[in-house]
Amino acid sequence: MNAAVAADGAPAFGVDIGGTKVLGVAVDATDAIVSEVRVATPHVSLLGPSDPGSGDMVAAVAEVVARLRRSVGWTGGSASPAVGVGVPGMCDRDGVLRFAPNLPSANGTPVRELLERALPGTPVTVENDAALAALAEHELGAARGTAHALVVTLGTGIGGGLITEGRVFAGAHGFAGEIGHMVVDPSGPLCPCGRRGCWERFASGGGLGRLAREAAHAGRLSEVVAVAGGDAEGVRGEHVTVAALAGDPGAVSVIEELGWWVALGLTNLVAILDPDRIVVGGGLVAAGEILLGPTRRAFAELVEGADHRPAVEIVLAELGDRAGAVGGALVTRRTVPGGGAPGAR
Amino acid sequence: MNAAVAADGAPAFGVDIGGTKVLGVAVDATDAIVSEVRVATPHVSLLGPSDPGSGDMVAAVAEVVARLRRSVGWTGGSASPAVGVGVPGMCDRDGVLRFAPNLPSANGTPVRELLERALPGTPVTVENDAALAALAEHELGAARGTAHALVVTLGTGIGGGLITEGRVFAGAHGFAGEIGHMVVDPSGPLCPCGRRGCWERFASGGGLGRLAREAAHAGRLSEVVAVAGGDAEGVRGEHVTVAALAGDPGAVSVIEELGWWVALGLTNLVAILDPDRIVVGGGLVAAGEILLGPTRRAFAELVEGADHRPAVEIVLAELGDRAGAVGGALVTRRTVPGGGAPGAR
Repeated sequence: MNAAVAADGAPAFGVDIGGTKVLGVAVDATDAIVSEVRVATPHVSLLGPSDPGSGDMVAAVAEVVARLRRSVGWTGGSASPAVGVGVPGMCDRDGVLRFAPNLPSANGTPVRELLERALPGTPVTVENDAALAALAEHELGAARGTAHALVVTLGTGIGGGLITEGRVFAGAHGFAGEIGHMVVDPSGPLCPCGRRGCWERFASGGGLGRLAREAAHAGRLSEVVAVAGGDAEGVRGEHVTVAALAGDPGAVSVIEELGWWVALGLTNLVAILDPDRIVVGGGLVAAGEILLGPTRRAFAELVEGADHRPAVEIVLAELGDRAGAVGGALVTRRTVPGGGAPGAR
Repeated sequence: MNAAVAADGAPAFGVDIGGTKVLGVAVDATDAIVSEVRVATPHVSLLGPSDPGSGDMVAAVAEVVARLRRSVGWTGGSASPAVGVGVPGMCDRDGVLRFAPNLPSANGTPVRELLERALPGTPVTVENDAALAALAEHELGAARGTAHALVVTLGTGIGGGLITEGRVFAGAHGFAGEIGHMVVDPSGPLCPCGRRGCWERFASGGGLGRLAREAAHAGRLSEVVAVAGGDAEGVRGEHVTVAALAGDPGAVSVIEELGWWVALGLTNLVAILDPDRIVVGGGLVAAGEILLGPTRRAFAELVEGADHRPAVEIVLAELGDRAGAVGGALVTRRTVPGGGAPGAR
């Protein structure tokens, strides 16, 4: 990997802090991934500064960076390669994770400050994970060449990155794109964010699990329940995805229901934002066409003015679970000194 | 009025086609309104090209323009002042009204082409009415000085204009801002757009009427029902607004319910777009603080990350029912030849 550094100048590092893993990549000056590191997310403590083990997450990111440095042969002799970090929540322009509904102990953590302390001399940028994924998909993946795109990450929750006028749109404070917390049913299930019926309660991995358990209790998923150990409450989203891919009709109908909810939120976003492409990524798209097919059909039925507007493409993301980390590396090349991250604006 | 033209150069004309009136203004080079004309919206035919009386709406706009021309002393001796027209629906970059849920006979009408034929030699720009209102509020009204604002018009339906980076955001095809057709309750009432539970079924004038009739049937609005002629089905939004302003507790509670629905949609939009100011206009804001107070309280309770983000101002629009027409006049000054309206982008 030394060759990449020597030939192309300094690499950039990107790290994505996810619910199960911390994933880091090194990207060379041609935007090629030249190294990758994954460690398990330390669940004992997370990021919270008042948490007894608050240093664990920072330590995990620092470990990932140290391994990336070694992998590209950086030994401290030259300027420390910049690091861009994706965090799962509302991140302000100072790199403070202000609100993370799915990681509440992290609310208020000054992530950039802590990481700059842990990595002396290293320029650190911190951004919302989905905004970084959108940047990566726009520059290198499925949103390439499109000025107005919506990049949606269907995982544990739902992340959103808005490409407008060819750039990631961050809003007034850096908080734009919190699309998972659009309420689509005010009498729906409680969300960790404190509201009821947020889109991500229906159209995320968690939402799939809930739809699946409802179907299981209604007796529509007997084979899936058997695989899950005989208890409807033990059914998880992955069980349904696997069964649906194997052709189980009950599981297929649950995935279709999920696709309807995915489409409902997408049509709302299209009414508001009018993108010409929607890129869907995240863990849920492991289901592939058995999810995207019903999503596209429901979308075509539900979108406002369906017969009177150009079709909106709905395509799969191309960068897989590396999108956030790659975006982290890319954004370091676009940072204006002292002014947030202008890949995002 | 001739003085304005002579002193400041050519005026610009803006016309807003609304549900009850066609409102036109002439704006001089200092952006001052120097003339205003209102005519009733011709309800026999509307805009539809296949409608037997399809010329009526175009004729109404042409009449408004003729009266504006006379009022500023334009007699044909110099270049014809440009006209910007606001239409209530999804309008593409060629000035075709593609989809108007509340004016279905107008779907597909080439408004710009028809008006250019009716007004030979006159440059005509056609845009969504709410986008034009947002432009006007941003340049001259309550959104002045704000780079990221949301201008919401609560009238018969709900219109939306998004100010991002200091400009009106129009999306990939000019259709952005259709915020009234964000579904907030998929099992809610049918909407003329074809879906169920669109935000404007709850938070518009029509929504207020529905909430009011529900309250009337439940016996919570006996005095209002009496004013409306004794029949709960005869209760309209205006009855409730008037009664609430007079202190009727049942009517106040209906307005509070309306405020909750207004807030719900606004919090969704804030999660997605992260503006720092929301400007609320349209006929419903005649209720003033008795609506805005409950809206602000519900907003503070419902917005994602309420305790972790800067407050978002919610203020009244300043340009009243002239906003769309004024925006129409302003946009003519920003038109790039051959390329839509760059006040909008």
